[in-house]
Amino acid sequence: MAELRLSELCTLLGKHALPAELDGDDRLIRAVNTLEDAGDGELSFLSNPKYLSALNKTRASAVIVKGDLAVPRKLTAVRCGDPYAALSVAIVAIHGHRRHPQWGVSDHARIDPTARVGANANIAGGATISANVTIGDDCTIYPGCYLADGVRIGHQCILYPNVVIYDHCVLGDRVTIHAGSVVGQDGLGYAPQNDQWVKIPQVGRTIIGNDVEIGANCAIDRATLGATRIGDGTKFGNDVVIGHGTKIGPDCLFVGQVGVAGSATIGRHVMLSGQVGVKGHLTIGDDVRVGAQSGVLGDVEPKAEMLGSPALPIENARRSIYAHQKLPEWIKRIKTLEREIAELREKLGVQNKADS
Amino acid sequence: MAELRLSELCTLLGKHALPAELDGDDRLIRAVNTLEDAGDGELSFLSNPKYLSALNKTRASAVIVKGDLAVPRKLTAVRCGDPYAALSVAIVAIHGHRRHPQWGVSDHARIDPTARVGANANIAGGATISANVTIGDDCTIYPGCYLADGVRIGHQCILYPNVVIYDHCVLGDRVTIHAGSVVGQDGLGYAPQNDQWVKIPQVGRTIIGNDVEIGANCAIDRATLGATRIGDGTKFGNDVVIGHGTKIGPDCLFVGQVGVAGSATIGRHVMLSGQVGVKGHLTIGDDVRVGAQSGVLGDVEPKAEMLGSPALPIENARRSIYAHQKLPEWIKRIKTLEREIAELREKLGVQNKADS
Amino acid sequence: MAELRLSELCTLLGKHALPAELDGDDRLIRAVNTLEDAGDGELSFLSNPKYLSALNKTRASAVIVKGDLAVPRKLTAVRCGDPYAALSVAIVAIHGHRRHPQWGVSDHARIDPTARVGANANIAGGATISANVTIGDDCTIYPGCYLADGVRIGHQCILYPNVVIYDHCVLGDRVTIHAGSVVGQDGLGYAPQNDQWVKIPQVGRTIIGNDVEIGANCAIDRATLGATRIGDGTKFGNDVVIGHGTKIGPDCLFVGQVGVAGSATIGRHVMLSGQVGVKGHLTIGDDVRVGAQSGVLGDVEPKAEMLGSPALPIENARRSIYAHQKLPEWIKRIKTLEREIAELREKLGVQNKADS
Repeated sequence: MAELRLSELCTLLGKHALPAELDGDDRLIRAVNTLEDAGDGELSFLSNPKYLSALNKTRASAVIVKGDLAVPRKLTAVRCGDPYAALSVAIVAIHGHRRHPQWGVSDHARIDPTARVGANANIAGGATISANVTIGDDCTIYPGCYLADGVRIGHQCILYPNVVIYDHCVLGDRVTIHAGSVVGQDGLGYAPQNDQWVKIPQVGRTIIGNDVEIGANCAIDRATLGATRIGDGTKFGNDVVIGHGTKIGPDCLFVGQVGVAGSATIGRHVMLSGQVGVKGHLTIGDDVRVGAQSGVLGDVEPKAEMLGSPALPIENARRSIYAHQKLPEWIKRIKTLEREIAELREKLGVQNKADS
Repeated sequence: MAELRLSELCTLLGKHALPAELDGDDRLIRAVNTLEDAGDGELSFLSNPKYLSALNKTRASAVIVKGDLAVPRKLTAVRCGDPYAALSVAIVAIHGHRRHPQWGVSDHARIDPTARVGANANIAGGATISANVTIGDDCTIYPGCYLADGVRIGHQCILYPNVVIYDHCVLGDRVTIHAGSVVGQDGLGYAPQNDQWVKIPQVGRTIIGNDVEIGANCAIDRATLGATRIGDGTKFGNDVVIGHGTKIGPDCLFVGQVGVAGSATIGRHVMLSGQVGVKGHLTIGDDVRVGAQSGVLGDVEPKAEMLGSPALPIENARRSIYAHQKLPEWIKRIKTLEREIAELREKLGVQNKADS
Repeated sequence: MAELRLSELCTLLGKHALPAELDGDDRLIRAVNTLEDAGDGELSFLSNPKYLSALNKTRASAVIVKGDLAVPRKLTAVRCGDPYAALSVAIVAIHGHRRHPQWGVSDHARIDPTARVGANANIAGGATISANVTIGDDCTIYPGCYLADGVRIGHQCILYPNVVIYDHCVLGDRVTIHAGSVVGQDGLGYAPQNDQWVKIPQVGRTIIGNDVEIGANCAIDRATLGATRIGDGTKFGNDVVIGHGTKIGPDCLFVGQVGVAGSATIGRHVMLSGQVGVKGHLTIGDDVRVGAQSGVLGDVEPKAEMLGSPALPIENARRSIYAHQKLPEWIKRIKTLEREIAELREKLGVQNKADS
C-alpha cells in the first residue's frame, strides 16, 4: 500500500488519458473504500446515481465523481469523465495487485526432475509438478496445485491453491486461475453400447491463451481429439463449465455458473451472464450478449443480444415474456369473446357446427 | 455412538420441549436409520404420510410418529408432536456429531511462525496456515486447506479438506465449510477498455458470521472494496456462488447451485431453492422464499414468495405457468372464434377492413 | 501410443463386431485426430454430415466414414456402419487409456497404520488415507485426495487430484472420480427452530457402484440416514450436485451442472442434459430423457422425454414453447377479434353487459 496525494492521483489519471480535476482540499489518501465503509483518509467513488444518498452519509475524505455532480462540502471531489476507470487507476496506485507469499521453489514442493522451471519461480510446498512439465518465468503456484505430465505454462502465471491441470494441457502467459478450478479433465466421451456407456479415451487437450483469468471451481474439459481452446484475454467467473472441444474466442466474459456444452464455437468479446447454458455444436458470433439464465439452442449472429430459454433476440424475448405474464388476462378476454359471440350467434339463429 | 433406552429418549425429548409418549416395549436402541434400511435395535421415523406403507415393511424396532398414528404391533411407537425435531434429538443422543481425526497440530502442517493458533487446535498435515493468520480455540482444519495471509477465524470452526480462504477474509465462531469451497477469490472486477477487460485489484474481503455452514465446492467472492458479508446462522448447499460485495442477512438457507450476483442485499431468513439466480445490485427483503430455478431480476418485498424466470409473486407465476401450458388449447379457441366471426360477418354482409 | 496399419485396424474392428472395409492405401497410423487438426500419418473420422466440407481440407491420411460416402482421393477411407464406435476402438488401439504416474505407495502419502491398502497400489505424495480405510487392488490415488475414516473403495479405482471422500462412504470397482469432486459431505439437514436452522447430524453415507465415472467439482451428499446411492455404470459430467438420500439407478448419464435434490429416486439409463434440476422426493422411471435446463417437479413415467421448467412431455413442451414465442401475434389476433365483434354488436344493437 502506498499513500498518495489527490493531486498526484489527478496527474496519474491524466497519464491514463482520464483527465481529472480536483475540487477541494488536496488530501493524503491511504486507501480506497466503499462510500459505506470508508473512513478518514480514504477515497471512495460514485458511478451509479442510484447511490447518491450514500454520498451525504459517507465518512470518506474524497470521492471520485462524474462531471460537475454536487458533493457535500466536507468531501474533496475528483471530477472525471469515467469514474469507474479512474477508480481502477486509484486502486492500482494505492493498493496495487495482490502480493503473493514468497516461497521461492519450496523444498516441500514435489517437482519431478524432468520438469523445466523458469526464472524467479515461486512454487509453494504442497504443489506437485509432474514429469516433463514446462513452467515459464515469474510464475506463482500455490499449495495443492497439480500440474500433470507434459503440462506447459507461460510466464507470469498465477495458480491459486488446489488448481489442477491435466496432462499435456497448455496455458499462455499471464494466466490466472483461482482456487479449485480444473483444466483438462475428461469430458463425457462415451460410445453407447447396449444401454451402457463405453469410455472413449480423451486424447486431446485444453489450450488456454494469454491474459486469461478463470474463477474458482471452474471445470474446462479437454477435447476428445484436438483441443478445447480459450482465447486470449477471456475472463470466467466461478463454477463455469466448458465442454470438450469447444473453442472460445478472445476477450469473452462469462459470469458465474455458465455452462457451455461440447464442440461449440464462440466468437470474440461474447458476454454470457450468470447461469447461461449453451448447447453443443453451435456457433455464436462476435460481440454477442446473452442475458442471465438463458439457454442458447441455435447459432447466433454477431452482435445479437439474446434472452430466454430457449433464447430469442432480446426484443422478441421481452415481448414474449411480457405477453406470458399478461396471459391470464388475455385468457379472460378470450372467454369474454366466446360469450359475446355465442350471444350473437343465438340472436342470429346460427347453428353450431362441430369444431374442425 | 451411545446406546439409549426408549424411555430415556422420551425423557430427553421432554427436556427439549418435545413431549413424547412411549407406546410399546422399552427397547434398547443402538442406531437411527431409515424405515427401509433399519434393522433390529434401530429406531426410525415417519413424518411424511406418503411413506406409510414403508411402516409395515420396516425391520426397525421402534419408530417416531406423530400423534396417535397406528403402527404395526411389533414396533414400539414414540409418539410426538414434531417427529422431525424429535428425530434430530435422537440422532444427536445416539450418534452425536462427526468425530474428527485428532491430529493436534501436525508436524506436517505448514504453519507460518507469525500465525496465532488458539488452544486445542486440530490441524492436519497438508494444511497451510500463512503469515499473520489468527485461528481461535478448538478449530479443526483438514488436509489441503489453505488460509492465506491475514485470515482470521473464530472458535470451534471446522474446515473440511481443500477449503481455501483468501487473504484477510474473516470467519466467525462455529463456522463449518465443506470440502473444496473457496472464500474470498477475486470476483469479475474489470474495467472495459477497447473491448478488453482491465483487471481492478479486488482489495475488499469476505466476512462470514457465526454459526454459518457452507456446502462443498461453493465460491464466495471477496468485495472489490469493503466486504462481501454472510450473516450469522446462514446455511448454503453445494456449488453456491456469491458475487462480490453482496450482503446476505442472518439465518438464510440457500439450496445447491444457487447463484447471487454482486452487490445484492439479501435480508434475514431468506430461502432460495435449487439453481435460483439473483441479479446484482438489488434488495430482497426478510423472510422471502424463492422457488427452484427462478431468476430474481428486481427488488422483492419482505415475506414475498416468488417463482419463475423472471420471478413473479407465486400466485401470478403459477397462473402464468398454467396458462402457458394450456396455451395450445387457447390458440385453438382463438381460431374457432375467428372462424365463427368470419361466418357472422359474411352473414351480415360486413366488409373486411385492413387490420390496424 | 502404438502405431497401427489400417488393415490391422479393420481386423480389430471386425473383432469388435464393427465390420469395416479399407478403401485406399494401407497406411501406417500413429495418431487419431480431428479433421481440422490432423496431419500426415493421422486418422480422422466423419460421423456428422454437417462437417462434410472439412473432409476436403483435412491433411489427415485416412478417415473413418459411414458406408459409401465419397472421400477425396488422397484420403484412405475406412468404411464402417458406425464411425463413432469405430473411432473409439481406434483411439484405444493407438493411444490407449491415460497412463498415470507410477508412485507406488509414496513415502509422502499420509497413510494411517490401520488402513488396508490392496496390491499394486499407486498412491501419490500428498494423498491422505485415514483410519480404517480399505482400498482394493490396482488403485491410483493422486495428490490432495482425502479418504476419511472408514472409507472403502474397490479395485482399479482412479481418484484424480483433490478428490475428497467423507467418512464411511463406499466406492465399487473401477470407479473414476475427476479432480475436485466431493463425495459424502453433509447435505442441508436442519430442523427449523424459531427461524433458525438446527443441524441434524448426517449419519448416513454415500454408496457408489461399479464402473461409475464422475466429472470434476461434483458434490454428492451423504444421506441423513441410510445411503445416497449411485448405481453401476452411471456417468456424471462436471459440477453435478446430488442431494442427500437420493438413489440413482444404473447406467444413467448426467451432463454438467445437473442438480438433483434429496430423496429422489431415479431409474435405470436416465439421461439428464445440462443444468437440469430435479426436485426432491420424486420418482423418475427407467430410460427417461430430460432436455437441457429443464426443471422436473413431479414423477416421470419410464421412457418419457421431458422438457421445460416445469418439465412437460416433450411434444407438449415444444407446442407450448412455440405458442409462447408466437404469443404477441396471437394477442394481435385477439385484439382484431375484439374490434370485429364490437362492430357486429353495434350493427346488431346489442347492449354491453358488465363482464362476469
